[in-house]
Amino acid sequence: MERADRDLAFMLQYENIAWYDNGKVRILDRRCYPRRVEFVECARYAEVAQAVTDMVTQSAGPYTAAAMGMALAAYECREKSADAQRAYLRAAADCLSSARPTTAKRMRQVCDTALNAAEKALLSGENVAEAIKANAIRANDARYTKIGHMASYLVDMFPDKGAVMTQCFGETIVGQMLRVAKARGKQLRIFCPETRPYFQGARLTATVCYEMGFDVTVITDNMPAFVMEREHIDVFTSAADVICMDGHVVNKVGTFQIAIVAKYMGIPYYVTGAPDVVHPDIGSVKIEMRDSDFVLQAMGVKTARDGVKGYYPAFDVTPPALVSGVVTDKGIYCPYDLARYQKEGNAGEYELVV
Amino acid sequence: MERADRDLAFMLQYENIAWYDNGKVRILDRRCYPRRVEFVECARYAEVAQAVTDMVTQSAGPYTAAAMGMALAAYECREKSADAQRAYLRAAADCLSSARPTTAKRMRQVCDTALNAAEKALLSGENVAEAIKANAIRANDARYTKIGHMASYLVDMFPDKGAVMTQCFGETIVGQMLRVAKARGKQLRIFCPETRPYFQGARLTATVCYEMGFDVTVITDNMPAFVMEREHIDVFTSAADVICMDGHVVNKVGTFQIAIVAKYMGIPYYVTGAPDVVHPDIGSVKIEMRDSDFVLQAMGVKTARDGVKGYYPAFDVTPPALVSGVVTDKGIYCPYDLARYQKEGNAGEYELVV
Repeated sequence: MERADRDLAFMLQYENIAWYDNGKVRILDRRCYPRRVEFVECARYAEVAQAVTDMVTQSAGPYTAAAMGMALAAYECREKSADAQRAYLRAAADCLSSARPTTAKRMRQVCDTALNAAEKALLSGENVAEAIKANAIRANDARYTKIGHMASYLVDMFPDKGAVMTQCFGETIVGQMLRVAKARGKQLRIFCPETRPYFQGARLTATVCYEMGFDVTVITDNMPAFVMEREHIDVFTSAADVICMDGHVVNKVGTFQIAIVAKYMGIPYYVTGAPDVVHPDIGSVKIEMRDSDFVLQAMGVKTARDGVKGYYPAFDVTPPALVSGVVTDKGIYCPYDLARYQKEGNAGEYELVV
Repeated sequence: MERADRDLAFMLQYENIAWYDNGKVRILDRRCYPRRVEFVECARYAEVAQAVTDMVTQSAGPYTAAAMGMALAAYECREKSADAQRAYLRAAADCLSSARPTTAKRMRQVCDTALNAAEKALLSGENVAEAIKANAIRANDARYTKIGHMASYLVDMFPDKGAVMTQCFGETIVGQMLRVAKARGKQLRIFCPETRPYFQGARLTATVCYEMGFDVTVITDNMPAFVMEREHIDVFTSAADVICMDGHVVNKVGTFQIAIVAKYMGIPYYVTGAPDVVHPDIGSVKIEMRDSDFVLQAMGVKTARDGVKGYYPAFDVTPPALVSGVVTDKGIYCPYDLARYQKEGNAGEYELVV
């Protein structure tokens, strides 16, 4: 394998994002990637939940981590009675689901799926941990296939030669989008806002774009308006942490203002992901406020003097009026008509927004 | 003097921004302030120009530095013939004026004023360096008085109790605005976007606000839309590097997109400064593109992998349609009617936008 391909595979395959094996869950520490390649190793499910809370992984990473954490929980309680194992796994599901508030409902679904797999294994006498892991792999494989379709619809919206602006890091969809664009010979310049305070755009998205051979430019988060105008951005696209059935999009803080600017400029904004029946409207989403001191530093160096306060909403909310289209595995939907997505075809065992 | 007052004085008095004395110009190094208090000492005018190019000082700092640099140039050539001194000073004016492209015309005015003061001194036999310095101090004193008026008009636009968002660091106007607001008993929460890549908002504006006793919060540059909505921002205000006679505002990159977001939210944007006759329209302004590698680091730590490109426009352009009012020393003007500012009253020897 070429070095570039290996690096990309490294970033995008869930074997590296979070992986259960032999009583341990190993999670790629994205807080320091790509400067350092380090893994957080968890011997108990509570450590997996803490790693998610601590932003060791993000984007779709927490879902894989939660599923693998459930496998670990099954390993932890393997010598208990079947009923004690059930109770232990229910407690693990509660703990892992609540690791981050904004995506709690989605995390709950992942954990419930693991509980179902566990129940089947308990009844049939299979190894519960391995059954949960196998189930997680199947779900992820299905998700990867769906995201391939999603990427295809998204790339339809790109010009053959042009410029695309991203926001934060959309994990699988970023890699799939680039693969499809490359296969179709689209010549794209990609502009990645750095995405403070964690720099996911500079560290993760830009890395994947570069390694896929694209012309990629990192800008600071105060530059999107200037760049949209001067560099003739054709499309703004982002993934989402939640797409509510009423068309509101919850994604990394900054998405909202780039969408406002895109609207002002007449540039379309396409969000990728599946509309989420567990979130009928934006009122059902709790925006996570993280440790405010974190915005008073950059890459570990303090920026403001003592006494100055910080403020750190992890996500913001983009209303449907600013969304040009919701790009799903089944096609592109109007943000005001997302109920149709659920009605059309098989929505799958569970949907992961990526 | 109280410590807080001393710190504020330190930040805002031009004796600390840039100062000529005994054949040396000393410039506060704002690149590391407030973490470290360091000065760049220049023994030749070319070093002053280089310091301005290198962002040792910014906002109105370069104007004071240029004037003091002209005094230094006069010191350097003091033993030459009068005509040789004239030639030397003209060369110094050319060099200092061109230290940064976007404000070149304004810098030219400052240097021309110094040349006039030098000419008078040469004719009357005064010490040329001291004459230039005295002239710079007079001009700055006049400017400070004007900015006091400007601050008064600006604070008229603030509620008695509310929230204000700033952008970058407006030097004198920030201090004056806070003094006036405090004197009038206005209870303001101030939100400062950090202003990447140099963090002037986090390092400088927030420091001044805190030391003046205000409730100040630093946010990252991707948060203004979220904060405007959730924290009920009443007013967005910034200074400007250039206010063109056609109402276009050139200021630190990011101003444009915050102004777009403010317009979307129905929040007024007031820019402080004097409309500039040397810039009849935006076509006369060259936007400075700085070293693009600088956006690939934060506080000295690299953020993106090798091979990824950066992009660094120092300023952006906000069109008059997004400007609610141009707050000058003579009152608040409609951005489409700035010619009236020049006609009304005495526009002064030269105007410095702060």
